[in-house]
Amino acid sequence: MPQVYFDYASTTPIDLKVLGEMRPYLKKEFGNPSSVHSCGQRVAKALQEARKTIAEFLNCQPAEVFFTGSATEADNLAVLGLIRAFESKKKPHIIISAIEHHAILEPCRFLEKEGVELSILPVDKNGIILLSELKKLIKSNTLLVSVIYANNEIGTIQPIAQISKIIKEKEQELKTKIYFHTDAVQAANYLDCSVKNLAVDMLTLSAHKIYGPKGVGSLYIKKGTPIQPLIFGGGQEQGLRSGTENIAGIVGMAAAIKEAGSPKAKIYTVKVRQLRDKLIREIPRIIPAVELNGSLEKRLPNNVNFSFAGIEGEALLIALDQKGFAVSTGSACSSHNLESSHVLLALGIPEERTHSSLRITLGKDTAAKEIEKFLKVLPKVVERLREISGYKIK
Amino acid sequence: MPQVYFDYASTTPIDLKVLGEMRPYLKKEFGNPSSVHSCGQRVAKALQEARKTIAEFLNCQPAEVFFTGSATEADNLAVLGLIRAFESKKKPHIIISAIEHHAILEPCRFLEKEGVELSILPVDKNGIILLSELKKLIKSNTLLVSVIYANNEIGTIQPIAQISKIIKEKEQELKTKIYFHTDAVQAANYLDCSVKNLAVDMLTLSAHKIYGPKGVGSLYIKKGTPIQPLIFGGGQEQGLRSGTENIAGIVGMAAAIKEAGSPKAKIYTVKVRQLRDKLIREIPRIIPAVELNGSLEKRLPNNVNFSFAGIEGEALLIALDQKGFAVSTGSACSSHNLESSHVLLALGIPEERTHSSLRITLGKDTAAKEIEKFLKVLPKVVERLREISGYKIK
Repeated sequence: MPQVYFDYASTTPIDLKVLGEMRPYLKKEFGNPSSVHSCGQRVAKALQEARKTIAEFLNCQPAEVFFTGSATEADNLAVLGLIRAFESKKKPHIIISAIEHHAILEPCRFLEKEGVELSILPVDKNGIILLSELKKLIKSNTLLVSVIYANNEIGTIQPIAQISKIIKEKEQELKTKIYFHTDAVQAANYLDCSVKNLAVDMLTLSAHKIYGPKGVGSLYIKKGTPIQPLIFGGGQEQGLRSGTENIAGIVGMAAAIKEAGSPKAKIYTVKVRQLRDKLIREIPRIIPAVELNGSLEKRLPNNVNFSFAGIEGEALLIALDQKGFAVSTGSACSSHNLESSHVLLALGIPEERTHSSLRITLGKDTAAKEIEKFLKVLPKVVERLREISGYKIK
Repeated sequence: MPQVYFDYASTTPIDLKVLGEMRPYLKKEFGNPSSVHSCGQRVAKALQEARKTIAEFLNCQPAEVFFTGSATEADNLAVLGLIRAFESKKKPHIIISAIEHHAILEPCRFLEKEGVELSILPVDKNGIILLSELKKLIKSNTLLVSVIYANNEIGTIQPIAQISKIIKEKEQELKTKIYFHTDAVQAANYLDCSVKNLAVDMLTLSAHKIYGPKGVGSLYIKKGTPIQPLIFGGGQEQGLRSGTENIAGIVGMAAAIKEAGSPKAKIYTVKVRQLRDKLIREIPRIIPAVELNGSLEKRLPNNVNFSFAGIEGEALLIALDQKGFAVSTGSACSSHNLESSHVLLALGIPEERTHSSLRITLGKDTAAKEIEKFLKVLPKVVERLREISGYKIK
């Protein structure tokens, strides 16, 4: 039985066109871009072209685009790289939202143990950061603010340009320089990623969330931003990320970005949003005692996240898997632990409800009939699991 | 005109069998191994299998194998990870050989700036480390010794097991724990990489030097070795290297390792050695004023490195490229700067001669007729360049 894939926020299949563009670099064009001979130089040119493509998408200079081995590495480079490049007797201060991805949260927690000051910016019940709180948190030693553009679990979209405006005002007031980073991993498929419009200093992208390959990410770093490398060696990526470049991966990432920025993407966005809206409308209509997690309006067009009272999300996931549907309880990246989602907790959702959440994320290949099929299966599965758990609808 | 590729130490083409094993993970099996559903779990199983394959090659436990985004990252994880995990008031001391790859040299230089003590272990004129000097350098605060198994520029093979024995003796004498790392990136195609036989605590491998894909490396870390991650996040790789795994790359690396450890590899090693020996024998016979760099005996079977008096290596490389041969002046990783090779300088080679070096590295697809062709072209090219530079043979 072919699986219906509803977990596009975890990872996406590689687009066939993207794979087609990668193919020469998995075969004939295998040179090392650092090599001087023509076999290497042809590949160096492909690397340059890929960087240009990303730069066009981000509306920045190619020299401001740095390739990494993952978006997690890019996030870490932004946080650890900036803080470690900071030379001052003042203790640096970082502000991050309460619903950051682990790739931001964990390096910040690590820095906190090392003595860096960390503030967690709260969000409202929809998952939108409190701008008034941001204003209060910024201090004279604030060096970095990092806010995820669109959240991976609940799809909440943050007002990045507005945040940037507040930071700039505070910079003037406090006569200090504050760097602003956003993780745009989930946003890149659907939202404007012009770094000029967003007015950010750093921005993270992932290839495998936008129909590109796994094993490649990139970080936009605005010219003049001080960054210390995490990885030292042969001096690739302007000395910021040494190691032979994953050319096939990088070419694939550029091809994926080109697709994400194409008019075609706008068309499937409309389709995806319609299908998502159907799920958000129908699920509470056909299943009692469910609650939507996250904002209804400020939400990625492909994200659905509901809590089903009386059911463990994990049990629901496994039951649906047996019926041929691949869904998630939240972030795939946090499946390594059984803790409550810090994202759902930050919205003020009670712990019990956080454990009963299910994330359904759609993609460009999602078909209307898959949604129909799912809406037929889901109520039965939920009913059966509620019977087992002895849950009674209040 | 198809290029004759003599730069296998820079990078290798992906073996077709390896690419075949990668293919499903570039297409249908695109799941995230952290996902709980079966689409993710099938991929998690492939990851587990790949780890097992590497472990078999290294003669270690699968849980001691960690995948990274490059061998450079693995080298950095070994050095920075160990030193940063070290908790003591004593200043840690690192010993590295004078002919390490930049992926070891640069993180060590960086740590030195941060206050770590760094000693450079000298080598003899053949590039073999001086064991007597190693004995003298080890002190009570020595925490790490890192020696490259086989050098990337001159192919010199180090006596890793002997080094390990000396370290163990010193450990007993000084009542301290010293960790021993080796970069086996160039060695993996040709030499025994059993970590039991080598008696190392950490060992680095690269996929793209052994007919696997770019963008993946791995680090063996002996159980109990304290390591701090370089990259924090979702907790992949037992928390030591967060970020969604590059599954296609990892599966490719495992397939490449399997080939490297197969009886077939022993057969092509014989062929490669014969072709190399022909070059080493013939070049000085047909071209005056050339000198072999590195050891004749303790040398990788695929490495040739000569200095051609009166010629810039770079000019020779470019002239040969025009004639259809891809060669190198040394490490592709150091092509970003025009400094003398620190490896050749460490052998006591005069600076002028270091600039006139040419590296020719063979691989399993190298054909005898390519060697013949090269031996016909090389003398003419050298002669022409010597005419231009006005060099007169003494």
